[in-house]
Amino acid sequence: MDRHERQFDRELGELKKKLLRMASIAETMVDRAVTELVSRDENIAHNVPEYEMELNRLQIEIDEAAMTLLATQQPVAVDLRFIFAVVKINSELERIGDLAINITQNVHVLVQQPPLKPLIDIPRMAELARKMVNESLDSFVKGDVLIAQTVIMTDDQVDDLRDQIMRELLTYMIADAMTIERSLALILIARHLERVADHATNIAENVIYMCQGRDVRHPTTPKERPAM
Amino acid sequence: MDRHERQFDRELGELKKKLLRMASIAETMVDRAVTELVSRDENIAHNVPEYEMELNRLQIEIDEAAMTLLATQQPVAVDLRFIFAVVKINSELERIGDLAINITQNVHVLVQQPPLKPLIDIPRMAELARKMVNESLDSFVKGDVLIAQTVIMTDDQVDDLRDQIMRELLTYMIADAMTIERSLALILIARHLERVADHATNIAENVIYMCQGRDVRHPTTPKERPAM
Repeated sequence: MDRHERQFDRELGELKKKLLRMASIAETMVDRAVTELVSRDENIAHNVPEYEMELNRLQIEIDEAAMTLLATQQPVAVDLRFIFAVVKINSELERIGDLAINITQNVHVLVQQPPLKPLIDIPRMAELARKMVNESLDSFVKGDVLIAQTVIMTDDQVDDLRDQIMRELLTYMIADAMTIERSLALILIARHLERVADHATNIAENVIYMCQGRDVRHPTTPKERPAM
Repeated sequence: MDRHERQFDRELGELKKKLLRMASIAETMVDRAVTELVSRDENIAHNVPEYEMELNRLQIEIDEAAMTLLATQQPVAVDLRFIFAVVKINSELERIGDLAINITQNVHVLVQQPPLKPLIDIPRMAELARKMVNESLDSFVKGDVLIAQTVIMTDDQVDDLRDQIMRELLTYMIADAMTIERSLALILIARHLERVADHATNIAENVIYMCQGRDVRHPTTPKERPAM
């Protein structure tokens, strides 16, 4: 391996490290937002906006590094597919950060008011979504298609939880108008978490494409979607 | 210009044409979904799922064509930035299609039930969002930063409409429990439309980056976000 190749590998390694850093920040953001909701301690998520700024900075750095590598190294085959995956995963992680911000905004509304009910399904949904993000990146780093497939399958559990949460909160709203604003905020949080899981699914699909050159983003049997 | 360059330009032109076809399909899907909601004629959006399949097929074709061009032509500078923009815009358009599908699902729920109220703000929001998608692609094709900036500014109007819709529907829900399910479906439609506009904004930001090499995705003054 000549010096030029070593340098290229180092730069690919650098890209990978930055992407892992982004994923770790995005996970922390989601976790903090939901922990604040459950604990009703407003200090827990107060630095989520700072995390988002770091996420945004990293996103730009990664895109620029990817462009520079494409221009200067003109990679082909596996290296090109790796960089292509990095660019796609980069966008997904940045959006997970945006969703964490959306969740904290709903949480701020909720912690000002008395608790509506003990929260069980939303923390469970958050934990599943966070784990999916973590494992999708793990599948990327290891180039492991099996882990990626597990992530994709877990998405159905997240969708089931979302349906359950929607049904339960609709019942609350109909029974007592005093619960409507809080129920709506919880419904929106569940939708945001569902989208975090969707982004993890997209990451896993990109990993499979990177590894196999096979596009699994649009299976022939359409995935079930929420009724509303 | 030698034969090889002409071939490369033809392939870039082909990519551009496919992206425009995607945008046109995505716009049609959003338009059909909202027209069905307003007219309550269930035939209007019935082929939206077919459009989505075409969108998915085009997305894969565009990504593969972009990868092939990167591998075989090893473009630099402006051509590289163009292809980078194509890959990013491609993902945004595919998601607009997903959102149109989400909207039709909410619409199906609504047209089974008596109308809640005359719809004015939602069709207005849909028209703004559709126009933003159209103009973001126009700015891409023309490489016109001014058009892209107009798209980004229009997003504030969409957010204002969403807030207005949320406030109004919350009032309906609190006043009459019979309206809760329909109000919730309308709120979710407004959120989907807001996200269509967000994707158009992302496209416009990518166009500015392509033209100027300047990243406008994360301005220093954070954009206002919905309170819930």
